[in-house]
Amino acid sequence: MPKWNIYTPEGVQDILINECFIKRNIENDIREVFRKSGYFEIETPTFEFYDTFSVDQESIPQEMMFKFFDRQGRILVLRPDLTIPVARVAAGKFKDFKFPMRFCYIGNTFRYNESGGGKHNEFTQAGVELLGAKSPEADAEVIAVAIKAIKASGLENFQIDIGQVDFFNGLMEESGLDEQDVEELQKLIDRKDFIGMEEIINQRNIPVRLKQAILDLTRLFGSEEVIDRAEKLVENQRSLNALKHLRNIIDILKDFGLGKYVSVDLGMVRSINYYTGVIFRGFTYGVGFPILSGGRYDRLTGKFGKECPATGFSIGINLLMSALVRQNADIEKPSVDSLVCYEKEGRKRAFEICEALRKQGLVVEMDISMRGLDYIEAYSKAKGIGGIIRVLDDERVEVRNFETGEVHMTTVSRLKGGCNG
Amino acid sequence: MPKWNIYTPEGVQDILINECFIKRNIENDIREVFRKSGYFEIETPTFEFYDTFSVDQESIPQEMMFKFFDRQGRILVLRPDLTIPVARVAAGKFKDFKFPMRFCYIGNTFRYNESGGGKHNEFTQAGVELLGAKSPEADAEVIAVAIKAIKASGLENFQIDIGQVDFFNGLMEESGLDEQDVEELQKLIDRKDFIGMEEIINQRNIPVRLKQAILDLTRLFGSEEVIDRAEKLVENQRSLNALKHLRNIIDILKDFGLGKYVSVDLGMVRSINYYTGVIFRGFTYGVGFPILSGGRYDRLTGKFGKECPATGFSIGINLLMSALVRQNADIEKPSVDSLVCYEKEGRKRAFEICEALRKQGLVVEMDISMRGLDYIEAYSKAKGIGGIIRVLDDERVEVRNFETGEVHMTTVSRLKGGCNG
Repeated sequence: MPKWNIYTPEGVQDILINECFIKRNIENDIREVFRKSGYFEIETPTFEFYDTFSVDQESIPQEMMFKFFDRQGRILVLRPDLTIPVARVAAGKFKDFKFPMRFCYIGNTFRYNESGGGKHNEFTQAGVELLGAKSPEADAEVIAVAIKAIKASGLENFQIDIGQVDFFNGLMEESGLDEQDVEELQKLIDRKDFIGMEEIINQRNIPVRLKQAILDLTRLFGSEEVIDRAEKLVENQRSLNALKHLRNIIDILKDFGLGKYVSVDLGMVRSINYYTGVIFRGFTYGVGFPILSGGRYDRLTGKFGKECPATGFSIGINLLMSALVRQNADIEKPSVDSLVCYEKEGRKRAFEICEALRKQGLVVEMDISMRGLDYIEAYSKAKGIGGIIRVLDDERVEVRNFETGEVHMTTVSRLKGGCNG
Repeated sequence: MPKWNIYTPEGVQDILINECFIKRNIENDIREVFRKSGYFEIETPTFEFYDTFSVDQESIPQEMMFKFFDRQGRILVLRPDLTIPVARVAAGKFKDFKFPMRFCYIGNTFRYNESGGGKHNEFTQAGVELLGAKSPEADAEVIAVAIKAIKASGLENFQIDIGQVDFFNGLMEESGLDEQDVEELQKLIDRKDFIGMEEIINQRNIPVRLKQAILDLTRLFGSEEVIDRAEKLVENQRSLNALKHLRNIIDILKDFGLGKYVSVDLGMVRSINYYTGVIFRGFTYGVGFPILSGGRYDRLTGKFGKECPATGFSIGINLLMSALVRQNADIEKPSVDSLVCYEKEGRKRAFEICEALRKQGLVVEMDISMRGLDYIEAYSKAKGIGGIIRVLDDERVEVRNFETGEVHMTTVSRLKGGCNG
C-alpha cells in the first residue's frame, strides 16, 4: 500500500484533540451570542450549483472555487461563502415574509487561497445576516453582535474598522472619473499605493480640493473625528449622507458601550460593487488577515428574485483560533478526570459509578484493558488522567488520586455522593 | 438572471430554522455523551485524496464518491465516511502512542445514494472509534456509548441488533465453500433470499447439518437464546469462539443495564471483508434504514502503516432527526422571548436591558425598525415573540405580555432583576 495515502491535500488540515476542543468551545460560545440576539441558525449544503455563486463574480472569482461535475454534467462548487446561500434561502424560502429576518450560520467554506499566512483552502465561518432592514440601527446591531461574538470567544484585544462605501462613490461622482479610473483607484487605495493614485489623479481634470480628498482617503482612519475631517473634504450629498449614516452607527455603538472597539476607516473601498453602504473588518494582533468582515449588501437577494436590504458579517473561526492561541488567552484543554476499573464482581457497580460521575459533569473512562493495576496506572499517567477508581465489589471502592498521591478506601454510596478522582 | 440559480442539487438540502435547531441540540447532546465517556473529538478535512478512501474499496465503491481534481490533477473526494480519516490520523499522527485511544467526530459525509427513503447525498455522521483494544469490554463500551447517545437525543424506542461476522466465517470454512460461493451467499442472506440460498447449497457437497445451519442464518435473530441455538448448529472453533465473544458482550451490556436495547442477529453478514468481529446496527420505527452502524475493524489502520485493533460506530444524524420528528418526541423549537424597543432617550438603557436579559438565558431582539408600536406589535406577533418591552427613558419601562394580554409599567431596576417578557 503506498505510504502517501496518509497525507492530506494542501490547504486543509486535521484539527486534533486540543485544537478541536478549543474550536468547538469558540463555536458554541459564538452560537449562543447569535441565538440570544434573536438570530436563527440555518445549515445550507456543502456544495451547490456553480450558478448560485456566479451571481456574485465580483467578490468570488471562479478560479478560487473548487468545482466539479454532477452525474448530469452540471457544475457544482464547494461553497466559497455562506452569505450567498443565506440570501438564496431568504429570497426563495422566505420570500413571503414581510418583516426583517435574522439568520446565522456556522459552517465550512472552501476557496483556493494563496498559501501561507494562516489562510486555508477549507475554513470555518460563523456569521449573521439581517435581512429586510435598512436602518443604521440594523447596521449597528450586526456590528454589536460581531463584537459580542469575538468577546465571547475570549479575545479582548481587537478592533473593528468601519467604513462607508458611499463616501467613496460620492467622491468619484463628484470628481467625474470614469468607471475604469474608479476601478483602478480602488485597487491602488487598497494597496495604499500613493504614487499610483497621484499618477491617475494628475492626468485628470479634477479640482484641487477633490484631488486632495482622494489622496487623503488612505489617511482617513482613526477615531470619530475622522468623520469631521472627511465632511470638510467633500461637497456632494451622497458622500455627506454616507458620513451622516456612519456617524449615526458610531453613536449607537457608543450608546451600547462598545465605542472602544470601533474605529473609522474611509479608505476601505474593496468589493465596492458588492457592498452598498457600511463596510467593516475586524483585526487583532498577530494575525495578518481580518478575523471578520461584513457590511451592507442591498443588491444581493435581488439576484435570487427578491429585492431586500441586507447587512451582516462573518468571522473566520480558524483565524480567531490562531489569535487566541498566540495571545495566550486562558484556554481550557480536554482532559479525563477519572478512570474506573473493577474486579469482575464489581462490574455492574463500576458502570453505575461511571454514569453517576458523568452526570455530575466529570469525564470518566471505564477500563477496557482488563489488565493489572501497573498497566492501568501507566496508561492513566501517560494520558494525564486525574486518578483511578477501583471498584472491588458491590460495596468497596479504592480511590487513587494522582495529584495528591493519596490512596484510600471508601464505599460506593459515599463516592457517588461526590467524587473528584 | 436565470431563476434556476435558486435551486440546490439533488440529495442535498437546506436545513432551516426549526430543523437546524433540533439538529444542533441532537449534535450537542451526543457530543456530551462522547466527551464524558472519554472520547476526544477530532475534525478532519471535508475532502481528501481519493487514495485515502480507496484503501477500502470493499465498503465504499468509487461510483458512490464525489470526485474532482486539484490544480495538480490529483483526484480528490468529498469524504464518504469518517472512520477512514480517523484511522488515518490514528495510524499517522498517533502512531507512537502505546495505549488505547478514544476518538469521536461529528461531521458531514458525502455519497451518491439511491434517492428516496430519507437517504441523502450529504449527511451528518456522529461516531466514536476506540483504537488499540481487543477485549469484548471495548466492543461493549462502544455499543453502550451508541445506546447512550441515541437516548440522549431523546429517542427511546430503538433497538441495536448485534452480530459476529466470525460465526459466518467459521461456518463457511466448516462447509468448505469457495470464495465465490461465500460472496454470493452473503448477498442472498442479506436479501433474505431463501430460494437462492437453497439453490447454491444444494449444488454443493455439504453435510445436511451445515446446510440447515446456513439456511437458519436469517432466522438466527432475537433474544440471547439465539446464541444457545446457534451453538448447537456448528462444530468449528471459529464460530464457537465468535458466539462466546458475543455472549460476553451481551453479558456486559446487561450488567450495564442496557440489555433491553439489544438483540442478537447472526444473519448480519454485510461488509464482511471490512468488519472482523462484532457488527451491529441500530433501528427504530418509521425509518427504513439503520440509524447507526458499527463493529470491529481490526484490519483498517494497517492500511495506513500501523496495525491496530479497532472498534466503533457512527450514527446518521439526519435519519435520527427524522425518527425523532416522526415519533413526536418532545421537541423544543427556537423562539424569541422578548422584543425590546425604545424611545430615543432610552436607547442606552434598552441595550443594557437586552444584555441583562440575555445573560439570564433569554432570547431577546432589539428593535431595528424605528417604527411605531403598531408595526412592532404586528411584527412580534407574526414572529411568535412572547412580548414587548418598551424603554421610555432612563427609568420607565412598559411591558406588554402577549400571552396574558397584560400591559404594565415598571422600572428598569425591577425589570433587570428578572423578566419573563
